Amino acid sequence: MSQHARVVALAGGVGGSRLAQGLARALPADALTVVVNTGDDLTHLGLRVCPDLDTLMYTLAGLGDRARGWGLADESFRAMEMVGRYGGPTWFALGDRDLGTHLARTTRLHAGASLTEVTAELCASLGVSTRLLPMTDGERRTFIDTQEGERLAFQDWLVGRRAAPRVSRVVREGQGQATCAVLAALDAADLVVLCPSNPYVSIDPIMELAGVRERVADTRCVALSPIVGGAAVKGPLGTMIPDLTGAPASAAAIARHYQGLLDGMVVEHGDAEGLTLPSLETRTVMGDEHDRERLARELLAFAAALP
Amino acid sequence: MSQHARVVALAGGVGGSRLAQGLARALPADALTVVVNTGDDLTHLGLRVCPDLDTLMYTLAGLGDRARGWGLADESFRAMEMVGRYGGPTWFALGDRDLGTHLARTTRLHAGASLTEVTAELCASLGVSTRLLPMTDGERRTFIDTQEGERLAFQDWLVGRRAAPRVSRVVREGQGQATCAVLAALDAADLVVLCPSNPYVSIDPIMELAGVRERVADTRCVALSPIVGGAAVKGPLGTMIPDLTGAPASAAAIARHYQGLLDGMVVEHGDAEGLTLPSLETRTVMGDEHDRERLARELLAFAAALP
Repeated sequence: MSQHARVVALAGGVGGSRLAQGLARALPADALTVVVNTGDDLTHLGLRVCPDLDTLMYTLAGLGDRARGWGLADESFRAMEMVGRYGGPTWFALGDRDLGTHLARTTRLHAGASLTEVTAELCASLGVSTRLLPMTDGERRTFIDTQEGERLAFQDWLVGRRAAPRVSRVVREGQGQATCAVLAALDAADLVVLCPSNPYVSIDPIMELAGVRERVADTRCVALSPIVGGAAVKGPLGTMIPDLTGAPASAAAIARHYQGLLDGMVVEHGDAEGLTLPSLETRTVMGDEHDRERLARELLAFAAALP
Repeated sequence: MSQHARVVALAGGVGGSRLAQGLARALPADALTVVVNTGDDLTHLGLRVCPDLDTLMYTLAGLGDRARGWGLADESFRAMEMVGRYGGPTWFALGDRDLGTHLARTTRLHAGASLTEVTAELCASLGVSTRLLPMTDGERRTFIDTQEGERLAFQDWLVGRRAAPRVSRVVREGQGQATCAVLAALDAADLVVLCPSNPYVSIDPIMELAGVRERVADTRCVALSPIVGGAAVKGPLGTMIPDLTGAPASAAAIARHYQGLLDGMVVEHGDAEGLTLPSLETRTVMGDEHDRERLARELLAFAAALP
């Protein structure tokens, strides 16, 4: 495998966007496809909101808010202030500039365009040359079954309840299928990269779609661990692993989750304990775009050198 | 008729909102109902936008932008900038704060509330105690047939084409009916006030709804002329009157249009020429809220003194 082979990255939001930006800087534009989780999507205030796609798109466009990790830089929330004044739902904050994205997307979807088509249009408008593919053009949503017996839509749990209710099970609803573009990209891939996203709610929704898992299993595949020193870099993964598996959060727990798929794994210095597959220990908590590119290049070189 | 009788004002946007604010200041809250044109409404970027209702609501809440006459004061347009960046439609500018209104309204309409109910909720949230009633909860839209033979939705003509194409005919489409609340308010009214709004595109849409015209004809009715010194205070009325009637724009042309409905008319100093009904000449171009109240009180006193 050459270092400039065709790469497909599977990604969720914040962690996924950071590695995707590094890969986009390390690879020619036509060598990289990012398949993005849409299990987190929601229809909010009548608008189709795609948190992971937007985080990827904004980050790759250089427009993302680096401190928050999601949304646009230089954002304001004046529309939401008015929604709040009317007693409307404000638990899921949409910035004013961000609203422009949701309005444009929803308008195109209402006109009959697919999410794949709309995503390509939005990306082109923002100068994003990396191909971003939603995992499905249909409905396929993640729900959280809590230990108290509630079933919550993912964003209701993560944002609305601040991920406080303990998780007993992660479930998917909806009949959305992987798009032809996703399956074709996997067919053509020399390498699949599992971004440092939450396996249960970011990568699994993609992997579970018919045709995806077997294609990934048949392709060289490397994961970047989202667990560093026993904790998640961002998000609720640190408690989800023990809640769902009984084991502590670790790179090894991630490797076990992806059993049968991985040819190698990139982990933080000192995190290779318990791994039974080839691994690269390096600095994995990503800083600016140069640091992301450095890590992407290390990961690609590691993948290229695998037997 | 006492000066504190029950008053129903029929209103369009900017001119209607100014007199409505004056009436709201001159009358107890429970004595005034404003029935508002929804023939200008549009679904834009997936949102239900009610330009006249919003102008009324914002003005009565003291939140309106006085210089523009429509929209909210202290407004920004960052969402629209993003929509434009995506190549989406920007010809109808929605402010960021204003978007909050459309988002809240659209969400409630999608949930099954009627426009009458939603309007009451939004008004209550903004502290508007005057009762604002949309003319219909259904679809009833104004279209402009141009002299070049095109049929344009009203906002496409007014905003999209800057009212440049000459008008050959004003038509309505849609089966929306006057709400029970509108008909009941007219049944209880001691006085109907026709606000200084465009007769063809603001007042007629209300008047044409089944049951409205005969109720207005049976009630004491006073109009405030939207034509001052041969010109419209705002909007395209100044050219629509000659285009549609062949006669010059004048208070008398307005009176002829409302033939059979009016008991009296309030006009600008010097504009009573050609009027064959009782009239009050006064200063009708309204300034701040005190001036609007002054004019409303003069109009109410004039109406009360009519035979």
